[in-house]
This record gives sequence, structure tokens and C-alpha cells, in this order.
Amino acid sequence: MKKVLVLSGGVGGAKLALGLYRVLDAGNLVVAVNTGDDFDHLGLRICPDLDTTVYTLAGVADREQGWGRANETWRCLDTLADLGGAAWFRLGDQDLALHLLRTQALTEGASLSRFTEQLTQKLGVHAEVLPMSDQWVSTAVQTPEGRLWFQEYFVKRRCEPPVAAIEYSGAEQAQPNAQLLRYLASDDLRAIVIAPSNPFLSIAPLLAMPGLRAALQQARAPVVAVSPLIGNKAVKGPTAKIMRELNLTPSAPSVARYYAGLLDGFVVDTQDAALAAELTDDHFFTNTLMVTLEDRERLAREVLAYADRLPLRSR
Amino acid sequence: MKKVLVLSGGVGGAKLALGLYRVLDAGNLVVAVNTGDDFDHLGLRICPDLDTTVYTLAGVADREQGWGRANETWRCLDTLADLGGAAWFRLGDQDLALHLLRTQALTEGASLSRFTEQLTQKLGVHAEVLPMSDQWVSTAVQTPEGRLWFQEYFVKRRCEPPVAAIEYSGAEQAQPNAQLLRYLASDDLRAIVIAPSNPFLSIAPLLAMPGLRAALQQARAPVVAVSPLIGNKAVKGPTAKIMRELNLTPSAPSVARYYAGLLDGFVVDTQDAALAAELTDDHFFTNTLMVTLEDRERLAREVLAYADRLPLRSR
Repeated sequence: MKKVLVLSGGVGGAKLALGLYRVLDAGNLVVAVNTGDDFDHLGLRICPDLDTTVYTLAGVADREQGWGRANETWRCLDTLADLGGAAWFRLGDQDLALHLLRTQALTEGASLSRFTEQLTQKLGVHAEVLPMSDQWVSTAVQTPEGRLWFQEYFVKRRCEPPVAAIEYSGAEQAQPNAQLLRYLASDDLRAIVIAPSNPFLSIAPLLAMPGLRAALQQARAPVVAVSPLIGNKAVKGPTAKIMRELNLTPSAPSVARYYAGLLDGFVVDTQDAALAAELTDDHFFTNTLMVTLEDRERLAREVLAYADRLPLRSR
Repeated sequence: MKKVLVLSGGVGGAKLALGLYRVLDAGNLVVAVNTGDDFDHLGLRICPDLDTTVYTLAGVADREQGWGRANETWRCLDTLADLGGAAWFRLGDQDLALHLLRTQALTEGASLSRFTEQLTQKLGVHAEVLPMSDQWVSTAVQTPEGRLWFQEYFVKRRCEPPVAAIEYSGAEQAQPNAQLLRYLASDDLRAIVIAPSNPFLSIAPLLAMPGLRAALQQARAPVVAVSPLIGNKAVKGPTAKIMRELNLTPSAPSVARYYAGLLDGFVVDTQDAALAAELTDDHFFTNTLMVTLEDRERLAREVLAYADRLPLRSR
């Protein structure tokens, strides 16, 4: 059976990845995850999107907030705050264990992809979770307050400063994940799905690596994106706000234009059916809101069926 | 008012330090603490004796076990173990906060003594806690299993391997804490107390620094040790076992001989009164067992009164 490759960021992408994980046979899901959000904090390497993806697939994620682990406690962070430490990035007690282990593994010379592979095995996840690169790519946001690293902007400043531009430091030089490139160059993919993650903050860092963008354009499997906007609003996060700040209309067609040249198909919410005329790519309307586990599975099945209807590309 | 300087290791020493802290006026206690047990674990700098001392003086230590924090939880460590990490060294969730902060501070260039000073201030401790050195001294134990670093021997192997010899790596080269040397060279000390810590594992690393040993011998204040053995047994820990393995009779007089040339007075438990003839230094018998807080305060008062009766040295 061929595999399905998802390009994903954090919470929103992980929802669809979970749906696909549950409807596909074990071993048939590959998730390539943004690492532009990764940062070093309190001496620890933190990879928010990777962890959200792994926790979600492993069934240990906090369902309410979408990130972090279920039944989390905050004893370490509370004590850290009492001692005058930086507590703005919420690190739970269970979550910390992963950051400690990963930091140690990386310090000892392991690659991020090797560590992530071992982690998924340990957590019983029967999917491949691939960091987009083992090299450092850092998303930064230009704002009136100056240049903010992603987590400063996203967590510390709660996405409040208006975005003038977004940079993906290191993306030009970074080597994309080798296994990811092998999949893209192979005939083993059934479909490539761009998850409904923030295009500018979560998907763009992957596409900013020239080798990955080219490999995506040359892949034989159809590329299908799921719009992260429903009725011109993001389900969660600052997608629409950032689009306005970048002088883009926050709408599904704007997202499609952002992905121009990459897509064979675009999955759009039925609420946006009136925008059909603006969509130049092949598209498919359905309910894209994922509230329940059933929503995730249904959307996954529909995205797969839609991709299966699209022709294999001859490039 | 003059200050009292205590040379101390972990749990046993911290008990007497707490007694002194409670009976002395605020600001009159200085504790110089063994750092030979310090090690790097999971990427964190861990300083067990310093932390036991600070937690004890701050009133946040776990009274039952003597080390770590009260009301501790183990969520991070349990998760770490689930993920295949090393969980033999028990790091509680609250405790971890300190290790994270300290590791970060040291990485950013702070000295261990500066960090410890800020920590005691943050925890409201009105005593000076001085790491014996800001440089690396590592206690190692020669055993039939080979050379074990202190925590491997003490925690991982539970002091089981017989000790053939003990080394204090780096002690010859390490510069003793500058503030500690200033106190020892000054006329500001009322007494110098060697706490009832393990002489070989907790006090010896301090004395293994030539500069500290010399400063101690040249200090004007009387030096008084409290025997860690009661009826030839240690209250806690492997002191007696190690003495036998090193072909020393486990007894208060053997401890006094180990401190030969350093002591002006020796405080011995009344249970050992029959050994008086073996004691060549000036000595004082009292109940040295510290079970309750009152025990700690009473012993502290008695040690101070005894030291006050000893003449200032003219060296």
C-alpha cells in the first residue's frame, strides 16, 4: 500500500494527521513537520510542532488545548517562576522529560530525525514523523517592535505585534530531511497533503527550503492542500490577522494563491462555496472544521478520496 | 557579632547547619559546602550537597529523607523513565527547576557561588552558603568494579562496592572559594565547625584543596569537629562501612585522627565516653543525635558554647 505524506505544523495540522493516522493502515502515514518554531529555552531544545504531532498521534496530547500532554502538571515551571526563572513558555512536568531527553541526545550527537524516530517507536506511534530538516531553520517575524523570534512573537507577545514580514533564517542553506526527499522522489506516495496549518508560519518554513519545494513540484503524487480558513477566519491562531497585516485578503483563494504552482487540488470549507469563482486550481468543498475525532476521520477520508480522484502527475 | 563558619556535606551536615542557623542571629552563619558530589546528568548541573543545604535552611527540604524538596512530585522523572531515560538519580519536579536555572546560569557564565548567593536570597535564607570552589572537583571511588564517580557509587550502586581508595579529582588545582578564604584569614569568625558529615566523602574534598587546608590551619578561630559516628555507627550513610574498607576502626577517635592537625576541639557522643582515653585532642561529650528540630538547636548551642570556651589560636 502506498503512503500518504502530510506537510504539517502544530495543532491544526496534527488534527488532520490524526484523522489520517486513524483511517490509514498502520505504517502508511508520513508526517513532515515544521521545525521553524524550534528554539532553545532554559538550555533545552524545544520543538513545539514535532511534539504536538507526536503527542497527538500517540494519544497523549491534551485535547482541550491541542498542545502539550494530557493530565499535565506544572510543578517545575511554577517553582522556576518562584525562583525568578522565565515561565512564559509553558513547559509541563511530563513534557519536560521529552525536552531533557532530546537535548541530551542532540548534545551527544544524535540527529533530530533519529531522536524523533526513537521517540515515536517508544510511544507506539506507527507512523513516520519527519522533522523537515536536521539543520537549524528559525522563523522570525519583523514587527514595529523589531525582529522577534517565533516563540517570542507567538507565545511571549501572543501574536499581538503586527507582522511586516516573515523570515525563515537558515532555510536557504538547510538540507531537507533525507527520508522526506526519498519519499518525494519515489513512486511510493498515494497523496501529498498540505495540512490546514498556518501557511505563513507553519508550512512556509518547509517551502522555504529550495530543495524541498523543488522535490514537491517534481513529485508524482497529487498535492492537495486543506484551507486553514473557514469563512475568512482561522479556526485557531493568527492566520487571518497575519494575512491582513501582509496586505492579503484573509480567504481560501488567497491561501491557494500563496501555494501557487504547488497544488493539484484544494479542499475548501462549504461555507466558502461562494468563493468558487476565485479558485483557479481544482477544488473540493466539504466541512473542514474538525471538532470531534469523527470530524478528523471523516475529513481525512474525504481528502484521501479526493486526492485519489486526481490524476498522478507526470513531471 | 562574629560569624560561625561550618564546613559541611549534605544531609548530616545540613542538620547541624540548620540548628546553628536557628540559634544564631540572622547573617551570622556561613556554610562552606562540599561540591565534590556535583555532576552533570541529563544535561543538568546537579549539586546535591549545596541543594540539601539551601533547601534545609530555606525550610523547603523534605524532612523525612533529608534531601530534595518537601511535597515533591516525580512526574517528569516517571515520564523520562517511560521514554527510556535514566531515572536512577531521583530528580523531583520542583527540584528540577533549580537544576534548569543553575545550568542556564552557569552556561551563561555565572559562577556557582554567584548563582548560589542569588538562590539563597530568592529563598529568603539569611545565611551565606558558599560552594567550596567554583572550579570542578570530582570525588571518585576506586572499587573492584573500577573507578566510580561519586553519584554512580553513592546512588546508582547504593554504596555497595567496597572502597579501596577515594580520589578528589581536580582538588589540587581548584581555587577554594574566595569569600571562604577571606573569612578564614579574617578576625571575623567566632568558630569553625566541621559538621558531622562523612569525613571521607563530604569533608575530605574541601580539605583536599591545599589552599583551603592551609587557610584552615592558619585561621584564628577555634576549629571544632562534631563526630559523625555514634557508638561506632553512622547515623545515616556509609561512613562506618567505608572506614572498615579503608582498614580504619569505625570510631570517633579514628575520625579525630583523620582530622589530625586541624582540630582544637572534638564533640563526641556520650555513648562513646568509654573511648575518652583514645582522644588526644580536647573533646566534649554530649548527645549528638539530631532527630528533632530541638535536638539540632540544642547541639548547635552546645557546640558554640564549647567553641567559645576554647582559646583563640595564635598562628
